Amino acid sequence: MKVGDLSTPALLIDADALEHNLTTMARVHPGSRLRPHVKAHKCTSLAAEQRVHGHRSFTCATPREIIGMAAAGLGEDLLLANEVIDHSRLSAMAELQDASLITVAVDSQATIDAAARAGLKHVLIDVNVGLRRCGCKPSDAGHLADQARAKGLVVRGVMGYEGHVMAMPDRVEQRASVREAMEKLVVASLLAGGDIISAGGTDTFDLHDQVTEIQAGTYALMDTWYGNRGHPFRQACFVLATVISAQQDFAVGDAGLKTQGMDHGKPSIEGMKVLGVSDEHITFTSPTAMAVGDRVKVIPAHIDPTMAMHEVAWLVRGDDVIDRWPIDLRGW
Amino acid sequence: MKVGDLSTPALLIDADALEHNLTTMARVHPGSRLRPHVKAHKCTSLAAEQRVHGHRSFTCATPREIIGMAAAGLGEDLLLANEVIDHSRLSAMAELQDASLITVAVDSQATIDAAARAGLKHVLIDVNVGLRRCGCKPSDAGHLADQARAKGLVVRGVMGYEGHVMAMPDRVEQRASVREAMEKLVVASLLAGGDIISAGGTDTFDLHDQVTEIQAGTYALMDTWYGNRGHPFRQACFVLATVISAQQDFAVGDAGLKTQGMDHGKPSIEGMKVLGVSDEHITFTSPTAMAVGDRVKVIPAHIDPTMAMHEVAWLVRGDDVIDRWPIDLRGW
Repeated sequence: MKVGDLSTPALLIDADALEHNLTTMARVHPGSRLRPHVKAHKCTSLAAEQRVHGHRSFTCATPREIIGMAAAGLGEDLLLANEVIDHSRLSAMAELQDASLITVAVDSQATIDAAARAGLKHVLIDVNVGLRRCGCKPSDAGHLADQARAKGLVVRGVMGYEGHVMAMPDRVEQRASVREAMEKLVVASLLAGGDIISAGGTDTFDLHDQVTEIQAGTYALMDTWYGNRGHPFRQACFVLATVISAQQDFAVGDAGLKTQGMDHGKPSIEGMKVLGVSDEHITFTSPTAMAVGDRVKVIPAHIDPTMAMHEVAWLVRGDDVIDRWPIDLRGW
Repeated sequence: MKVGDLSTPALLIDADALEHNLTTMARVHPGSRLRPHVKAHKCTSLAAEQRVHGHRSFTCATPREIIGMAAAGLGEDLLLANEVIDHSRLSAMAELQDASLITVAVDSQATIDAAARAGLKHVLIDVNVGLRRCGCKPSDAGHLADQARAKGLVVRGVMGYEGHVMAMPDRVEQRASVREAMEKLVVASLLAGGDIISAGGTDTFDLHDQVTEIQAGTYALMDTWYGNRGHPFRQACFVLATVISAQQDFAVGDAGLKTQGMDHGKPSIEGMKVLGVSDEHITFTSPTAMAVGDRVKVIPAHIDPTMAMHEVAWLVRGDDVIDRWPIDLRGW
């Protein structure tokens, strides 16, 4: 099949750019030093490629991601880097522990109790290192670890996502901010015990020297949010759109805001100016006249929600469609 | 089942508020004077309720919506209010014409040719009335209608969405703007022929006096974007979230930006202040302390993309879950 044969909107993954990104990251953070975050692609086929590049441990954001990864044979070391208290979902994950190693983040007595009650065996203490979201105070990490051990849970270590320092304009300042955040995590690690110190993301992948592993996800496919940050990763994901209406001074493509995340602003089209995006349409101007039936590749501003909106991604090389990858980890 | 038994994030539809909205709209625009837009809910169960309230004709934005509505026995008069040139999708709709009346929007020779080639029988001329999106010039409507008839297509009339005047601050000015836009559509109707003059949306549902039918969708479930416009519709849709982390000065719920559209800004929680939304989390402050396990109802800022992110909606009345409605019209 050719790319031109695909119905649109269609999610494309450029096989060569993906390969470049996976190879580049695996060189910097080989094996267990990277725990790829599957929330950024929600696709076990892509996770399997990350496995081929040497990463055997993965980060997930939802129970369904954990369950889907285990079902796909990628359950060697799965971390749910998120708090969950839902007994049915925790139990569903606990049932997979004969064949998979599953670790869940906890940041309170309630989340520890919920994990233990469901029969989960391993936890990581989630530490707030400055981002206004989940995580205990660094000084509470030891106390929580004790509580977890008292419930029979194995405390594998700590995690702390420095999301508040992502996309900082000055990289020197950003490095200092990462250091400051990670010093809190190291203190928490000393208090909590365990081997793992897990943190990071694509935008800080090269700024860490105090952690045991990096949780990066975006690097595999990229988006415009991180794409202009000077990282050695290429744009590997596009929403293919067909021009369905062409006016004198603008054109309309069939990839609207139900096909891509809008929380980081409008998507882009190389060489063109995006004027607006509505439910089913993207309106743009072009230096050369567009005709109905022309195709354009839209670059998402935020890859994570974009992937979650599609049932399938098409792996492409040039004009050839070489595989069909279900986005099989959608939902909760 | 009780609402408290649902795993979160969960999409809730308040049965009484929905009933109020459907009844209110059906009183203003009974029967065929409303052509409810299913893109706003993507749910045949909800469309069936609109049918119960007297509306037998529906508006769709994607071929899959058309096909799903026909499969659900709601194909009495379906309008694809959007341009499509994909032969396989147009053909799939054409195959349904024995049992369903299907009309597609066209705004160019190319879209007319595509509809005719696929065996579709009915078209509406889509007219640009001021919104920078699809639609021909009003003065071209007659010429296009002639071209369509020359291809053997029945021209049922014209449509023209006045999206550029939605959410105008001053309603008197808005009424004048609607009139100005609809005068263009009436001219196009005179040129194109046919019985139908289709336009409008929830925010202008009460400002039209020149069209034969209104294409409103949001009114059934509502969102914060139209919720403060003084319309007689109630908020009927919520994303139920569980507090998974409670800090001294904020709480974190498990309904992030993969559960609701962000193109109209952040969602809301009544009585609370939403600080931020990330992939899996909503962070907010509350006048009273929140505890892990507490539930909050998040009000989406934009209902259309929100519905498209969920597999299922739960119809609720008070604390009772009274039905499970699949969001079965997702995708393209």
